[in-house]
Amino acid sequence: MDVLAVQGFKAGALASGLRRHGRLDLALVYADEPVACAGIFTQSRVVAAPVILSREHVSDLRARGFIVNSGNANACTGAVGMKTAHEICETYARVLSADESDILCASTGVIGVVLEGDKITSQAERLVETGTADSRGLEDFAQAIMTTDTSSKICSQTFSYAGHTCTVTGIAKGSGMIKPNMATMIGVLLTDAPLSGSMCEEVLHTVAQPTFNSVTVDGDTSTNDTLICMASAVVDAPCIGKKEDDGYDQAVQAFFEVSDKLAKMIASDGEGATKEIEVVVTGARTSEDARRVAFTIAESPLVKTAVFGSDANWGRVAMAAGKAGVFFDQANMDIDFAGIPVCESGTALPFDEEAALAALGGGEVQIHIDLGERATSLSDIASAKTCFPAVGVARVLTCDLTYDYVRINGEYRS
Amino acid sequence: MDVLAVQGFKAGALASGLRRHGRLDLALVYADEPVACAGIFTQSRVVAAPVILSREHVSDLRARGFIVNSGNANACTGAVGMKTAHEICETYARVLSADESDILCASTGVIGVVLEGDKITSQAERLVETGTADSRGLEDFAQAIMTTDTSSKICSQTFSYAGHTCTVTGIAKGSGMIKPNMATMIGVLLTDAPLSGSMCEEVLHTVAQPTFNSVTVDGDTSTNDTLICMASAVVDAPCIGKKEDDGYDQAVQAFFEVSDKLAKMIASDGEGATKEIEVVVTGARTSEDARRVAFTIAESPLVKTAVFGSDANWGRVAMAAGKAGVFFDQANMDIDFAGIPVCESGTALPFDEEAALAALGGGEVQIHIDLGERATSLSDIASAKTCFPAVGVARVLTCDLTYDYVRINGEYRS
Repeated sequence: MDVLAVQGFKAGALASGLRRHGRLDLALVYADEPVACAGIFTQSRVVAAPVILSREHVSDLRARGFIVNSGNANACTGAVGMKTAHEICETYARVLSADESDILCASTGVIGVVLEGDKITSQAERLVETGTADSRGLEDFAQAIMTTDTSSKICSQTFSYAGHTCTVTGIAKGSGMIKPNMATMIGVLLTDAPLSGSMCEEVLHTVAQPTFNSVTVDGDTSTNDTLICMASAVVDAPCIGKKEDDGYDQAVQAFFEVSDKLAKMIASDGEGATKEIEVVVTGARTSEDARRVAFTIAESPLVKTAVFGSDANWGRVAMAAGKAGVFFDQANMDIDFAGIPVCESGTALPFDEEAALAALGGGEVQIHIDLGERATSLSDIASAKTCFPAVGVARVLTCDLTYDYVRINGEYRS
Repeated sequence: MDVLAVQGFKAGALASGLRRHGRLDLALVYADEPVACAGIFTQSRVVAAPVILSREHVSDLRARGFIVNSGNANACTGAVGMKTAHEICETYARVLSADESDILCASTGVIGVVLEGDKITSQAERLVETGTADSRGLEDFAQAIMTTDTSSKICSQTFSYAGHTCTVTGIAKGSGMIKPNMATMIGVLLTDAPLSGSMCEEVLHTVAQPTFNSVTVDGDTSTNDTLICMASAVVDAPCIGKKEDDGYDQAVQAFFEVSDKLAKMIASDGEGATKEIEVVVTGARTSEDARRVAFTIAESPLVKTAVFGSDANWGRVAMAAGKAGVFFDQANMDIDFAGIPVCESGTALPFDEEAALAALGGGEVQIHIDLGERATSLSDIASAKTCFPAVGVARVLTCDLTYDYVRINGEYRS
């Protein structure tokens, strides 16, 4: 589906000089008036100034605009960083004739360097004027928030509600320092549906867990993770104000599909990635156990390098599952690697190495481990890829660990 | 100090054909009669057959011999693997005229491939005859247990007790899949001191925590981790049978020094490593918190690649500390990177990039973070490198993440 504009929002971007080579580095999306809004943020103990401020600003579940810069994270910048974040919100509020508390902000880039806030504030009038209501503005937004991303991440979905077609368009960035744990690095989900603030919050938490919160590139959680949802309610239909209301389930499904696509784009654009890896765990005692095992496999450097080398060294999957700190009996453990059964009841199966090499050569590799702590049906396995996985089931998306990951991150600031 | 023979033990190694190119791959150390012994093993849920068997055999705190092969881990090999491990112990017991339960075994190498046990059992007579009482046998042992190690790891220390000089010699292997969590991959500590079985166990647990259990190369815990301590009691002095006995403290210190040297050898020989990284955390609320933060920093791919690239990108240290799941206030966080103060009270300090580049160019890089949750004295900081760190203090050893790590692990089985 093409990228769709979302009624009630304008978006735009420009090059403020925070990044080199005249790259777009400043992005704004704003509504014509205050709209329903919710946000989720990094769970790190070390958080950037814009996270502290935006958490406060979003607490009343309404907002006018969301301003994002790349090139500098404004993290570990102390009182100066907080002052800069305030000045940014104040300035954009003035230009939009909004309250400061209705402006959200996010920053992404290097940590521990003072942010040149005047580059952002001096562009306020120009950036607001740049905003367009068509999809081009959103695409520019997606470009401007990129850091080590090799491509922008944006997609749309529609759903029917009360005789109307509602639109959801999502934008995200993220490539390294990715294990969101309650948000992707920076993301925004926009809809014209009449969701209340509390339903924005509900939908956001529901879809973030199986999508953005199930991606890990390197197990590293950013100081700046921010995911915002805004609903303009331009679609003229009754407000969706509680989970039982008509339209809620359709909205969740559309938000899930957008978030799932963005999460996959993040995994496959992981720093230096050549392959996307999907880890599916079934048969765990609890869903939390399943997630722990899936993340432990997805974050194992030995598993990730084996996939990079197209080596069906599935013993590393068994090793990773074993160290996850979760109870299971190895005698009931089954493993499929790239679709090939390699371990049954804890014991190696003979398999065709040539077939494995071929299966690992593609752009996507699936690793499936069943821990055997509960009976697993085919529908349980299928549920791993939906918004509501069965009990004891989890899916985590990641990518391989390559020479380029080392190159990109050994040279990042240079 | 040179490598010292340990009275009461013979050791040797040979090439059984499990590894290619005629490399030493089978190692044995044995005493003249059953001696006091203790072991600690991997905490993984997926454990190799020799781990299951040796746990059982060591439970009576006595043993005659320890047989180790490289080239194959005998893990995920089911009932066949258990049978092979039994046959190995039985055969070596027969040749040594010992009980099967007095023979310990360990395997290291690829997971999920059936171990050719006859290559090990058929060599029993020859390997026992190969054993020598001098240090050459121990050095061969150290060679034979290597896998991706680039150098063998062996060292000695002595201590005085009751007018005698007692010797401790330790041997270890480990390079990847290293986050021991209750043992190094494979290690053995030998002494001629008269330690009882329960004191072997006490010393082993005391020294393993600040040494072998404080090393991580890639955060991956092996299915085969095994660390054995054997005491021949050839030194003719009263048995050290409880912690209050004369000689206990000296023994702990000597075992610690040997274990600490071996742990450093493992960290600096991490797969593909060009630099050893020492992470010191102080000022945490508890010692467990300090260890969690230290491990999270030491396992962060972004921190490890920054050190590889000689990039003082200390924001990644702040990021890693923040995601460790441990309470602290970022406003009290101080960070020194390679000896250079870069962050004070959570705020970036200006520093000389040229000086940082030079400091990061050496073979050892220290990262020190104080979480500010308790007052920290200089003696607290110094305690990080001893057997008994102060409360709220921890040290973890690791290495940088390099192109060669990816090469070694992308090609391992090929």
